[in-house]
Amino acid sequence: MSLELVSFVICPFVQRAIIVLSEKEVPFEITYVDITDPPKWFNEISPFGKVPLLKVDGDVLFESAIINEYLDEVFMPRLHPEVPLERAKQRGWIEFGSNLFFEQVGLLLAKDADEYQQKKEGLAGSFARLEQQVSDGPYFKGNHFSLLDAAFAPLFMRFDLLTRWDPTLDEIMPSRMQTWGKALLQRPSVASSVVDDFDQQFVAFFAKKGSWLLSDESDLASKDAGDYLSL
Amino acid sequence: MSLELVSFVICPFVQRAIIVLSEKEVPFEITYVDITDPPKWFNEISPFGKVPLLKVDGDVLFESAIINEYLDEVFMPRLHPEVPLERAKQRGWIEFGSNLFFEQVGLLLAKDADEYQQKKEGLAGSFARLEQQVSDGPYFKGNHFSLLDAAFAPLFMRFDLLTRWDPTLDEIMPSRMQTWGKALLQRPSVASSVVDDFDQQFVAFFAKKGSWLLSDESDLASKDAGDYLSL
Repeated sequence: MSLELVSFVICPFVQRAIIVLSEKEVPFEITYVDITDPPKWFNEISPFGKVPLLKVDGDVLFESAIINEYLDEVFMPRLHPEVPLERAKQRGWIEFGSNLFFEQVGLLLAKDADEYQQKKEGLAGSFARLEQQVSDGPYFKGNHFSLLDAAFAPLFMRFDLLTRWDPTLDEIMPSRMQTWGKALLQRPSVASSVVDDFDQQFVAFFAKKGSWLLSDESDLASKDAGDYLSL
Repeated sequence: MSLELVSFVICPFVQRAIIVLSEKEVPFEITYVDITDPPKWFNEISPFGKVPLLKVDGDVLFESAIINEYLDEVFMPRLHPEVPLERAKQRGWIEFGSNLFFEQVGLLLAKDADEYQQKKEGLAGSFARLEQQVSDGPYFKGNHFSLLDAAFAPLFMRFDLLTRWDPTLDEIMPSRMQTWGKALLQRPSVASSVVDDFDQQFVAFFAKKGSWLLSDESDLASKDAGDYLSL
């Protein structure tokens, strides 16, 4: 079986699939497209014009949650819980995690301090809701690294990056989420799931889109963070 | 096991779960909420403020695709294809179907003839894409009524209703989709999946929201359709 993942370099949804493939030690090819100006072949095979796509021999799978369900059914070890009800609950919270990415993008695309504050409060509310579901650690439900953990790791990675601009972001993340996020970022499959210059590419992408947080106008930006990324 | 489905009376996503429960002959309770003004208990248990919810004893599942996956795993007969790759592909097209509901709502909420025409062309493009995936019938993939068929049936039911206002809508639906839709609407689990006055409630909901198609301003509305629904 030949697997080819079609990716946009900073996309958190593709990253979910990379983490799962890595956990299962499944070899795959990766092809990058510029999602802001995709090639014609991409639009022809992507029904929503989105990444990831997973090409499985001649077939194309789309949507990260669906790609990961497929990988989990076909390649061992099984990451999803064995009990159907638990699995269904985790699928729901994976969807909640997908929505958190959009909330995080909202924070990044905020055009001024007021909008930023508003988005930050929205994210704080979602975090508080999620916190009630999180175990004592290290992962979402104890010691077993699950498909849900793979789905949330890209969120924690981005959040960690953003706290270099706004250290007070740490305050909106409750304690069990903090412990969980740290454990995820230390996991080798997570650490190796992005390109070497991910931080620079991620910041450059949103800075170009007029992110207030990443601009000089934001008094949140610390000199250290700017130096770190050589913006 | 006690199952309670939380519904909004005209929601197509809830209807998907009702069809699956009916196909599997699983008894369940149904509780209706007004999604435009939901009660406090609903917001406390619905992370996205959306229906359906499925209460399974003390637990709450959300998102129609996830609820149906759960029902399909726990109650026989199995509706999803047995082969993982086929199952993954159908999950993708179920998601495509979810998106079609939003396109259909866009058509209904269009405020004038131009916007209506634009939304109609968008829907025609999506139908053309889907048509390539549809079998010769009667269902999406031949004789087996699947979870995907359950997911698309509410779309065909609404589309059939809208053609009473705009008979030319029929022209944007390609032939295999036409055959498929007719087979779905004849299925007992589909026919019995809505309340008796569904048509009236559906039309009243969108007319109140300022739908051009359903208004007197639209020259598409035939007198017969209006009489039929006693608007």
